[in-house]
Amino acid sequence: MFGAIEAGGTKFVLGIGSNPGNLTTIQIPTTTPGSTIAEAVAFFRNSSEEIEAVGIGSFGPVDLRPGSPTYGFITSTPKEGWNNCDLAGSIAKALGVPVGFDTDVNAAALGEARWGAGMGLTDCLYITVGTGIGGGAIVNGLILHGLVHPEMGHIRIPHDRSSDPFPGICPFHGDCLEGLASGPAMLARWGISAQQLQENHEGWRLEAHYLALGLVTWVCILSPQRIILGGGVMQRPHLFPLIQNEFSALINRYIKAHELNEGLCDYIVSPGLGNRSGVLGALALAERALGKTQQSTNPDKDI
Amino acid sequence: MFGAIEAGGTKFVLGIGSNPGNLTTIQIPTTTPGSTIAEAVAFFRNSSEEIEAVGIGSFGPVDLRPGSPTYGFITSTPKEGWNNCDLAGSIAKALGVPVGFDTDVNAAALGEARWGAGMGLTDCLYITVGTGIGGGAIVNGLILHGLVHPEMGHIRIPHDRSSDPFPGICPFHGDCLEGLASGPAMLARWGISAQQLQENHEGWRLEAHYLALGLVTWVCILSPQRIILGGGVMQRPHLFPLIQNEFSALINRYIKAHELNEGLCDYIVSPGLGNRSGVLGALALAERALGKTQQSTNPDKDI
Repeated sequence: MFGAIEAGGTKFVLGIGSNPGNLTTIQIPTTTPGSTIAEAVAFFRNSSEEIEAVGIGSFGPVDLRPGSPTYGFITSTPKEGWNNCDLAGSIAKALGVPVGFDTDVNAAALGEARWGAGMGLTDCLYITVGTGIGGGAIVNGLILHGLVHPEMGHIRIPHDRSSDPFPGICPFHGDCLEGLASGPAMLARWGISAQQLQENHEGWRLEAHYLALGLVTWVCILSPQRIILGGGVMQRPHLFPLIQNEFSALINRYIKAHELNEGLCDYIVSPGLGNRSGVLGALALAERALGKTQQSTNPDKDI
Repeated sequence: MFGAIEAGGTKFVLGIGSNPGNLTTIQIPTTTPGSTIAEAVAFFRNSSEEIEAVGIGSFGPVDLRPGSPTYGFITSTPKEGWNNCDLAGSIAKALGVPVGFDTDVNAAALGEARWGAGMGLTDCLYITVGTGIGGGAIVNGLILHGLVHPEMGHIRIPHDRSSDPFPGICPFHGDCLEGLASGPAMLARWGISAQQLQENHEGWRLEAHYLALGLVTWVCILSPQRIILGGGVMQRPHLFPLIQNEFSALINRYIKAHELNEGLCDYIVSPGLGNRSGVLGALALAERALGKTQQSTNPDKDI
C-alpha cells in the first residue's frame, strides 16, 4: 500500500491505496506547513495499512533537481508560510519511507499515463486550465523535467489586439496563454466566471481559439500521442468540440497522422481519472519511489 | 566502424568512422534515389573498413513509426522521385547490417548530445535556422519522437502586422515561425539573403525577436538544459547576442535558473560539432542501432 499527497494551495488531498480501484482519500485545508504536514502524517500513521512509500504532487514552484540542497522543497511561493518549505523531507523524516516528489501537473500527467487516458501510450501531455494553465509531459515513458520543469502556460501566442484588446493578466508576461485564457483571465475579461458563462457567450469561441493555439504549439514541439485537458475551465464539455474545430483549422493538415485529423475526438480528451488524476499520480510517484531504490541504470538511453 | 548518411535534399554526406576524431566523409549530390543510394552503398562497400552498422539522418517527411509498413521511408516529399522511397530498407538490404534511421534534425540533436555542445546533458535541444526551421530534442537521454516527430519551426508566435506587415511564406501557416524567420523568409522580406545582409541592417533585430519568441516557447515546453542553434542563418555570429538579449527581455526572469539568466551565453550556443552535427548524429544512430539489438527493456521508465 502507498500513500499519496496532492498538495494544493487551497487543499491537500491525501490518499492510501494501490490503484484507482483501491484508494481511500480525504481532503484537508492548506493552512500552515506545520499544521497541514502534521495532519497528513497523522492520517498515514493512523491508517491500519502499512504504507511502503509516499508520493507527493505539489503546487510550486518546487525544487526537483536531484542533489540540490533544497530538493523536495516548495521554494519561492507567494503563499504565506510555505516559502522554502521542505515538504518531501518532512514527510520522509516523519514516516521513514521512500518519498517520490514532483509538481502537481507532472503527477497528474503520470497518473493519467499510468491508469487514465494516457494508459498504454509512451508520449502524452496533461494540461490543466483553471486558476492557471500548466501541464506535464510524458516522453518515451518518462516524465519530462529538463532544466527545471515545463511552464506550459507561459508560452506566447498570437494575440490580435484589434479584435481582442484585453491585455492579459499574467504579472510576468501580460498576454501569454495563461494571461489570456486561464479561469481568472476569463473572469477579468467578461466579469463572469467560466463556471457561470453561458454556453452561447462569445467568450467561449475566443477561449477555444487561444487554447487551440496552445495545443498546436504543444503538438509541434512535443508530438504527444494524446492530449488530456483537465482543470476547472475544462469542466464545461461544450468547450471540447470548439477547441477541436479550431485546432483542425490551425494545424491545416500539415502533420499527417490519423490522430490529428479524423481521430481528433479521441486525441484531445478529458482526464480518464476525472478529478483524481493528481492524487493517483501521487500514488504512481510513490510506487516509482519504491521501485527506484532497486534500479540504477537505463540501458535504453540514447546517449 | 560505422557508416553514416546525412541525407539532404541537395546533397548526401557519407561518413565512415567511430567518433569525431575518427571520421572520413565525402559528399555526393542528391539526384535520383536509385543513383544516389547506389553511390552511397558503393562508398561503404569499397571501404577497407568493415562497417558494423549504418545510421541515417534524413530529410523528410519520414516514417519513424516502429512496425509501420513504410518505416524508414521518405514519404510525401515534394522532391521529385523521392516520394515513397524506402531509404533505410534499401541500405539495410544492400549492406546486410543494422540500420538506425531518424530525421536529419533528430540525428543532429543526438550528435550534439553524444559528442558536441550537449555532451553530458540529459535534456537538450538542437534547432536549425536555414532553408527551414526545425529541431530535435533529447529528453531524459532519449530522442523525442512521440506521435510523429516534432515540427519545431511551425509554431505560431506573436506577429504584430502594424510594425511588420510581411505576411510570412509558409504555404501551410503563413506567419508561423518558419514562415517569418527562415532563410527564405529573410530573403523574401528584404530582397537580400541572410548571408549577405549587413550586420547593422534592421532585419537582424527583427530576426532575433522572432527567434527569441521561439526560444522562449521551446524553453517553456521542453525546459532544455542547453539550446544549440545551427543552420545557415546562424552562421552570422552577431545574431547570438541579439537573440540572447531579446530572450532575456521576453522570459523576464520568470523561470529561476542560473542558465536562463546570468548563464545565458552558455545556454544558447553554436553547435559543438560545427557543420558535422548531422553526419556525426547519423554515426551515433548507427552505434545505437547495433547496441539496440542486444537491448529489449527499459527498467527506468516511469510507466
